[in-house]
Amino acid sequence: MTIRIRPAEDGDAPAILGIILPVIRDGTTYALDTDMSDAAALAYWCGADKQTFVAEEGDTILGTYFIRPNQAGGGRHVCNCGYMTSATATGRGVARSMCAHSLTHAVSEGYRSMQFNFVISTNERAVKLWQSFGFDIVGRLPQAFRHPSLGYVDALVMHRFL
Amino acid sequence: MTIRIRPAEDGDAPAILGIILPVIRDGTTYALDTDMSDAAALAYWCGADKQTFVAEEGDTILGTYFIRPNQAGGGRHVCNCGYMTSATATGRGVARSMCAHSLTHAVSEGYRSMQFNFVISTNERAVKLWQSFGFDIVGRLPQAFRHPSLGYVDALVMHRFL
Repeated sequence: MTIRIRPAEDGDAPAILGIILPVIRDGTTYALDTDMSDAAALAYWCGADKQTFVAEEGDTILGTYFIRPNQAGGGRHVCNCGYMTSATATGRGVARSMCAHSLTHAVSEGYRSMQFNFVISTNERAVKLWQSFGFDIVGRLPQAFRHPSLGYVDALVMHRFL
Repeated sequence: MTIRIRPAEDGDAPAILGIILPVIRDGTTYALDTDMSDAAALAYWCGADKQTFVAEEGDTILGTYFIRPNQAGGGRHVCNCGYMTSATATGRGVARSMCAHSLTHAVSEGYRSMQFNFVISTNERAVKLWQSFGFDIVGRLPQAFRHPSLGYVDALVMHRFL
């Protein structure tokens, strides 16, 4: 499989929604309102404050990610990303490819660090993946996330320098 | 001094701007663009996602704070606040009064925790004040803030249950 990552275009909106809506509705990995509208979801993922990318194999979009400054002002040198993979493509390295791309892109944009603000501690696949890329857990937010089936669980702040 | 805290009203906008603009322009305690417009500053501080309060002594507004959900979806039970005090009123307990008010208000709103996402580590007065209210440092974001005179310094994530 060859995964190609490129900036999202307007015409990608249906494919992006096809990936992000199931993740949002599921409500186990992102702190987003599970009933948010399609338009609100798209506006969130492709907002003006973000650069949004898609990962495709041939003509099929398998994943999408965004990168943005994590804070304004004196915090603009730290970026933040969000990644989502199609449920049909899990375990095929799509998230890994997107993370690698985002780290390279972040350097080219002049960022000094990347921070994930709210990694759900029960999302072990994600925690391990980020750790394999050199991210450290720099904060643990006690019971910060109400998991639909597990109840209140911790969220992690993860960070690495670029 | 008797400090009274009440919800902000439209007519408070000039007084609120008189407090928040110097803090924003200074750029040493908040990760906000120091050149943001008056309108953008007011929109940020009094946005639809927030409840905004003012602290007044007699007819003079000495401080202002906001409270909002820190995350959407499964993170809505944790609130976040921002506090700013008039430079003319520092050391008179205004921030302390606002924090105490916000904790009581947060409980009445049904929040379970309060979290500060980005306390600049060099803002020792603030760190000590929050600790005196029982906040713990649950995260340290390395070099996350570019201080105008001190360079890159850590930011802290602080948390307490309600």
